[in-house]
Amino acid sequence: MAMAGLYRRVLPSPPAVDFSSDEGKKLFIEAIQAGTMEGFYKLISNFQTQLEPAYCGLATLSMVLNALSIDPKIRWRGPWRWFDESMLDCCEPLEKVKAEGISLGKVACLAQCAGAEVQAFRTSETTLDRFRQHVQSCSVSDGCHLVSSYHRGTLKQTGTGHFSPIGGYHAGRDMVLILDVA
Amino acid sequence: MAMAGLYRRVLPSPPAVDFSSDEGKKLFIEAIQAGTMEGFYKLISNFQTQLEPAYCGLATLSMVLNALSIDPKIRWRGPWRWFDESMLDCCEPLEKVKAEGISLGKVACLAQCAGAEVQAFRTSETTLDRFRQHVQSCSVSDGCHLVSSYHRGTLKQTGTGHFSPIGGYHAGRDMVLILDVA
Repeated sequence: MAMAGLYRRVLPSPPAVDFSSDEGKKLFIEAIQAGTMEGFYKLISNFQTQLEPAYCGLATLSMVLNALSIDPKIRWRGPWRWFDESMLDCCEPLEKVKAEGISLGKVACLAQCAGAEVQAFRTSETTLDRFRQHVQSCSVSDGCHLVSSYHRGTLKQTGTGHFSPIGGYHAGRDMVLILDVA
Repeated sequence: MAMAGLYRRVLPSPPAVDFSSDEGKKLFIEAIQAGTMEGFYKLISNFQTQLEPAYCGLATLSMVLNALSIDPKIRWRGPWRWFDESMLDCCEPLEKVKAEGISLGKVACLAQCAGAEVQAFRTSETTLDRFRQHVQSCSVSDGCHLVSSYHRGTLKQTGTGHFSPIGGYHAGRDMVLILDVA
């Protein structure tokens, strides 16, 4: 049984493009040159993959909080203050998140609780055009970051609801770079 | 006492250049265009910061093993096979690493134990020119990755011995990009 289980799924492409593929690298450089990857550097410097299968919301949030240089005001390990997933114990009990994951509303609540300025957008209350405007305006600065909550099935991926930060935008192809925390 | 401790140190620059600074971004793009950032994409897709203050060697190694798509052959969580630091329990007991850190020799042993092809270079047994040649040849492919073991004091940083992967090379400035796992 030691070998049971799964070793990665190959990314279904299309619709997504693998960041480390030739096409991914090309899109990345084009987007940098267009100035729409400005949030990438700080986000990726704080990249992490989730500690538990249901921690996508917490891993996403701790990346963004660290990228924004928000001080958790409590210690992580030794003398260091720093966000990790286990420190995001507010709005929803950590054990419940571990078992069931977390909703968009609770992620927004948690981000606020941790000291971030938050705006939550639900698909039912906004339009694709407005979403694109937010992506565009966030992509040219490193002072705001977008967190996406999406259904993996739409991208032909294994799984259901998922959270990840958006690392940048390619306007010509109308594509975002998802910094997948899984 | 809740607020005691430290919130990040500002990176002493020079000698290092912050990746997310204007100069850092410029060097990054130049190095991409020179073709010496080829290992960056897979490494950064597997970036992680260390789970414990003395886990720099293990975090570095699990990044590189995941970047090389080496199958741990045991499960991480649920059905998924994937390396994290706690799974690198070979050559040196995990509790000892947590308390004292890990030596270059043990990191090389561990990497081999996990299934990687390893070459270890000690400063006492090689030259700066040979090191530069290895950096250069690794930077143009994503099939090999360099792990650096260095003394933070040399870079005017807080701390002593540290491990991190090298994410690429800028030949014009003779600088490497250290993907610092701390």
